[in-house]
Amino acid sequence: MQDVRVGMVGYKFMGKAHSHAYRDLPMFFPQVPKPVMKLICGRDEAGVKQAAEQFGWEGYVTDWRELLQRDDIDLIDINAPSDAHKEIAIAAARAGKHLFCEKPLALTLEDAREMLAEAEAAGVKHMVGFNYRFAPAVQLAKKLVAEGRLGQIYHFRAWFLQDWIVDPDFPLVWRLQKEIAGSGSHGDLGAHLIDLAHFLVGDIDEVIGMSETFVKERPLPSSMTGLSAKGAKDAPRGPVTVDDATLFMARFSNGALGSFEATRFAPGHRCTNSFEINGSLGSVKFDFERMNELQVYFTSDADDVQGFRRVLATDPAHAYSEAWWPPGHTIGYEHTFIHETVELMKALEENRQPAPDFRDGVKCQEVLEAVDRSIAERRWVKTSEV
Amino acid sequence: MQDVRVGMVGYKFMGKAHSHAYRDLPMFFPQVPKPVMKLICGRDEAGVKQAAEQFGWEGYVTDWRELLQRDDIDLIDINAPSDAHKEIAIAAARAGKHLFCEKPLALTLEDAREMLAEAEAAGVKHMVGFNYRFAPAVQLAKKLVAEGRLGQIYHFRAWFLQDWIVDPDFPLVWRLQKEIAGSGSHGDLGAHLIDLAHFLVGDIDEVIGMSETFVKERPLPSSMTGLSAKGAKDAPRGPVTVDDATLFMARFSNGALGSFEATRFAPGHRCTNSFEINGSLGSVKFDFERMNELQVYFTSDADDVQGFRRVLATDPAHAYSEAWWPPGHTIGYEHTFIHETVELMKALEENRQPAPDFRDGVKCQEVLEAVDRSIAERRWVKTSEV
Amino acid sequence: MQDVRVGMVGYKFMGKAHSHAYRDLPMFFPQVPKPVMKLICGRDEAGVKQAAEQFGWEGYVTDWRELLQRDDIDLIDINAPSDAHKEIAIAAARAGKHLFCEKPLALTLEDAREMLAEAEAAGVKHMVGFNYRFAPAVQLAKKLVAEGRLGQIYHFRAWFLQDWIVDPDFPLVWRLQKEIAGSGSHGDLGAHLIDLAHFLVGDIDEVIGMSETFVKERPLPSSMTGLSAKGAKDAPRGPVTVDDATLFMARFSNGALGSFEATRFAPGHRCTNSFEINGSLGSVKFDFERMNELQVYFTSDADDVQGFRRVLATDPAHAYSEAWWPPGHTIGYEHTFIHETVELMKALEENRQPAPDFRDGVKCQEVLEAVDRSIAERRWVKTSEV
Amino acid sequence: MQDVRVGMVGYKFMGKAHSHAYRDLPMFFPQVPKPVMKLICGRDEAGVKQAAEQFGWEGYVTDWRELLQRDDIDLIDINAPSDAHKEIAIAAARAGKHLFCEKPLALTLEDAREMLAEAEAAGVKHMVGFNYRFAPAVQLAKKLVAEGRLGQIYHFRAWFLQDWIVDPDFPLVWRLQKEIAGSGSHGDLGAHLIDLAHFLVGDIDEVIGMSETFVKERPLPSSMTGLSAKGAKDAPRGPVTVDDATLFMARFSNGALGSFEATRFAPGHRCTNSFEINGSLGSVKFDFERMNELQVYFTSDADDVQGFRRVLATDPAHAYSEAWWPPGHTIGYEHTFIHETVELMKALEENRQPAPDFRDGVKCQEVLEAVDRSIAERRWVKTSEV
Repeated sequence: MQDVRVGMVGYKFMGKAHSHAYRDLPMFFPQVPKPVMKLICGRDEAGVKQAAEQFGWEGYVTDWRELLQRDDIDLIDINAPSDAHKEIAIAAARAGKHLFCEKPLALTLEDAREMLAEAEAAGVKHMVGFNYRFAPAVQLAKKLVAEGRLGQIYHFRAWFLQDWIVDPDFPLVWRLQKEIAGSGSHGDLGAHLIDLAHFLVGDIDEVIGMSETFVKERPLPSSMTGLSAKGAKDAPRGPVTVDDATLFMARFSNGALGSFEATRFAPGHRCTNSFEINGSLGSVKFDFERMNELQVYFTSDADDVQGFRRVLATDPAHAYSEAWWPPGHTIGYEHTFIHETVELMKALEENRQPAPDFRDGVKCQEVLEAVDRSIAERRWVKTSEV
Repeated sequence: MQDVRVGMVGYKFMGKAHSHAYRDLPMFFPQVPKPVMKLICGRDEAGVKQAAEQFGWEGYVTDWRELLQRDDIDLIDINAPSDAHKEIAIAAARAGKHLFCEKPLALTLEDAREMLAEAEAAGVKHMVGFNYRFAPAVQLAKKLVAEGRLGQIYHFRAWFLQDWIVDPDFPLVWRLQKEIAGSGSHGDLGAHLIDLAHFLVGDIDEVIGMSETFVKERPLPSSMTGLSAKGAKDAPRGPVTVDDATLFMARFSNGALGSFEATRFAPGHRCTNSFEINGSLGSVKFDFERMNELQVYFTSDADDVQGFRRVLATDPAHAYSEAWWPPGHTIGYEHTFIHETVELMKALEENRQPAPDFRDGVKCQEVLEAVDRSIAERRWVKTSEV
Repeated sequence: MQDVRVGMVGYKFMGKAHSHAYRDLPMFFPQVPKPVMKLICGRDEAGVKQAAEQFGWEGYVTDWRELLQRDDIDLIDINAPSDAHKEIAIAAARAGKHLFCEKPLALTLEDAREMLAEAEAAGVKHMVGFNYRFAPAVQLAKKLVAEGRLGQIYHFRAWFLQDWIVDPDFPLVWRLQKEIAGSGSHGDLGAHLIDLAHFLVGDIDEVIGMSETFVKERPLPSSMTGLSAKGAKDAPRGPVTVDDATLFMARFSNGALGSFEATRFAPGHRCTNSFEINGSLGSVKFDFERMNELQVYFTSDADDVQGFRRVLATDPAHAYSEAWWPPGHTIGYEHTFIHETVELMKALEENRQPAPDFRDGVKCQEVLEAVDRSIAERRWVKTSEV
Repeated sequence: MQDVRVGMVGYKFMGKAHSHAYRDLPMFFPQVPKPVMKLICGRDEAGVKQAAEQFGWEGYVTDWRELLQRDDIDLIDINAPSDAHKEIAIAAARAGKHLFCEKPLALTLEDAREMLAEAEAAGVKHMVGFNYRFAPAVQLAKKLVAEGRLGQIYHFRAWFLQDWIVDPDFPLVWRLQKEIAGSGSHGDLGAHLIDLAHFLVGDIDEVIGMSETFVKERPLPSSMTGLSAKGAKDAPRGPVTVDDATLFMARFSNGALGSFEATRFAPGHRCTNSFEINGSLGSVKFDFERMNELQVYFTSDADDVQGFRRVLATDPAHAYSEAWWPPGHTIGYEHTFIHETVELMKALEENRQPAPDFRDGVKCQEVLEAVDRSIAERRWVKTSEV
């Protein structure tokens, strides 16, 4: 079992989450290869230097190209802003490095496909960061579906609700700028829902969407970092160029109906990444704000005690739980990244593709793009069209 | 203050709910006119006779036309199966009777409009039975919206989930037959959501929907009554001609986005009539299975104690509560009908239209029909088109 | 099947609840004898006259003795303030009338025992108004215990939390005066918990309690009626002579441990009458503010889907549900009284004692008194001592 | 700012939790001194060697005395089984090491007092591991109480419910043996509740308790480690010498009433460490299974929107949140240890006692012992008596 030597590009929100995963993994999952935190890369030297020290990286660089030239790096972890993914990923693949790229893979479907093609051509392993798959409660949902315990799936309804930009004076951060972020709630939040749909239900056949930007201009920030930014209310304003909310309906290849909603304008919802699945034999419900829980219903329960069970996915029977604490001792957001990294390490050891990989990233992007087209053209769009 | 003498057509599920409302109203709302339970009408003499006695009607008839000829009847309450509404309502209006008609008003928009026109021409009062408006928690939601306490509305998402026909051997009852029921989950459940949307948010501009019939054939029942039916699994099967599930997205005239889902294929949901509204200043959530509760969130709450409040709408500050029990002593489904009847009695006393009236019924039908058309033509349809 | 002719003493909160039960019963439970609302009695002629009309009684009297002299009255329903129970009940028993008495049976154990003895000597039927037994979810809990589905019972913990007198300026109503009410939260709320304990778990062997009156003086009210009262903040104050809160621990005869708390000083709790039972095979939880629900857990559930189920006790498998509405259509507080009356009517028809009867009332009073003594003497007191 | 060099005794459940805290702390709290993981100690060489590697300690020893002789160790972390705490702590204090000891401090109050006296005599800093104080939601409760936002406190009710030994064939692990564990649910679970009571409400004046061992004999395990053990159902059985459940009532010095329950016999509760506080101005509720949430109620809320708010304690306004993830991204059990360690590191830097310290440990032990005595003597016992 060989260590995996990592070079990482990006050191803000996702950089911190990934770093922590590398750091914690060997302690809780000693049975998988150990990620070695070699180099972290960022353009701002002061910032990346501090991050390197704080997060525990051996060193730092300010040009990601350096990472590719190093022999002692096996894996490139890309969590820089979305507009930088493509160039780095392709160069890294060509340099023979394995790839771990945050979602969304790229700003456009075309770019994503190119990234996949290059990764496959280079024969490297590639993973995309749909971390929510790795909540134990989501893994339980997957298991119940896969084992047929929910029967034939009829409905998948999902919504990712946040409220961090409801204040119209919240500044115009990079996530609200199309040229950097690609899209707004759709690519940021909706992408997660789409991946969960693929993971839990299957392929999507066709979609139709709608979207809106409720607050059309915002104050330009004086400075920004990660998710936060500073700025005066009375600063000059610039246009918001991404969607504040995007909804769509979908038909799955297996006949199930899908309903999706991603918004940053739902006061009271800090991070309600939620789905429900209804099948012929039962249902499950999940809400990330209570990420340790899965609500489970079976039609076969005795007549007088039918009801959704609140399953706390911390029992020995649940994924990853043995690595953590006794039943009832819950885990948090960051653990999804640790589990994701476990999958990545295992896949590298077994010389197989990790899941989800760039194909899942492309598939997600196809749906995102089909939805965008359906909005522009006001009609149902098949995923096979894009 | 004059009593209101009622003749009622129908004596099953809704007939029972209405009868009970008439019966209980004078005890809890002595300040409004008293409904007098004159005659109940049904085609099956044995059945209607028993209902008359059990529910407390003075008498019964088997031909609804008799009700119209009676001088001692002021109001015709129509809760027979949907395909009978139109003929009775129009005849009753022409006979100068006030009208209280269950939803959906009619099988088609055209019929509904004709009913409205006739009622208006006759100068009678008319009400349509969207009873969910009258849950105190829904009234509270309305109050918060009307007083601007939620600010500008961004989102309305609503779903009405049931599971009573998930079993594919459940028989082909009348509610699954288009010629009697008009539609399936769409008209039965979706109609309630649409009315709540109108009541709480406002007019809908355009819609696009999708629908599905998951179980396409079912055993023919040997007998049926109300919601239930008997029949053998191996009885001959007939085609289900209505939708099992209908979803749609909507854009409101005020710019809000709407998402609607009505299904009878959601195991674990007996009667989840649920909505959420997100506005610039706050949000509310409602679930009919916990009908006494409204979840309320305000962005203006102090920074460290922001969160959805579970408001039990049984306090003196809440609608109708003074008529009932002390705070915390909850009420049930049937009370929505009592409150609905209070509105009807008050309106008749004040010589004004009750709300919701046939115009609301027509407006609901317009949306239903626009959705149907959008499904058939696979495109966005404006409500102004239908 | 003979009608049961009722004379009722009391016309406020409980009088309204009972009247409504008599009124609704024949409509929903036509298979049991019909209660006939003959005469209602109250000392204030204007008040009782209005109540008689509003609630639907045939007539009224202002002296309860008149009820006893009437041949056309079979049952005396006593829901006057607690200090009047004893005299009325004993006189009614001697007059050969069946008895339905609100809880607490009497102000003291001695009085309660005398009432029971007189009722038994007279050979009349007697019932005591522990209405919470009759919530369908509580009936389900009873069924699960009785069928052994929870195994051996280890724990019963129960609390009845209210907050209506938290404001220190709330006036000194009769329920806060020992000579009329007997006790405060202990007899008002704790009595219900004790009866539920008896009903669900069994006899209590010994107890130890503690209590407190947090607000020791309150403004004298200028007028009061039922639960409410009027008065100025700056009115003269009088002493509160009952407990604001009483807690106690108990050991059941079957070895289970009990924990009880009754308080009127729990802000946010309007009517949290709640219990949990833990047994060797499972657990149940109940909260009256969500009275249609029972949380149920079984140790035998599959390893990966263990969790409390939220059972909505509105399915055909649940007590009383067939009389009401389709699954998921909930009922409210007042229905507990209707179900209670169903039991009373059935028992009279079958010439048997209803349950709970005066023996249950006495048993409850024994525990109340044992707790009082344990508080006074600061020691464990056996119920057999009192 | 100097690093703090740690030597730790114990490497099982708590050893893992503490190790992880030391490991994660510098990444998320770079502003406090860094704990350096020098040496870990355990009696089983193979076990402790593996733990050292897996958890990231520089080395290991098998005799804790070695830790005391090392100049490069500043702090001794004691999380060995409870019966070993005293000897190690006293020796470490005498060696001039700072102390961080898991709860319960010792098997008896006398021992705990001796430990405190020695630590004070030695002038070292000392902390006791009541980690639940450090959940952000608990910190919020503390803040609301401290700022007077709940007013005068009337009630504290708390229960710690688990179910890991409900199966009567679960083996006789060390936690069920009095000579090693000191007590059962009382010292293990109840101790946490008592500390929370001290932290949130204040000193306890007097108590009375009851306890029970439901399963009196269990199979002897063939092997055991941490919380788990292996053994055959038909192995010879030995006596359970600790309590399965202990309940007690308490009166606080400030007049509040307390109710406490600790049990390992509550099926469905994996780790329900829960409390509620009722004050004159509001209430809070906490359940560790949803550890990111605090339910908060204020009497001053507007009349029509009163209700418990579900506050997700992940906002910038909440303790520790800035170190973690954006609002709504929850944390888990292990984070309580990280926050606890932050307090410890800060205190050492500021040359002050951390909180909670050994005095808090002694105070907790006083209550535990007073409860034990009250059980033995069946009477109220003042904490000042023990």
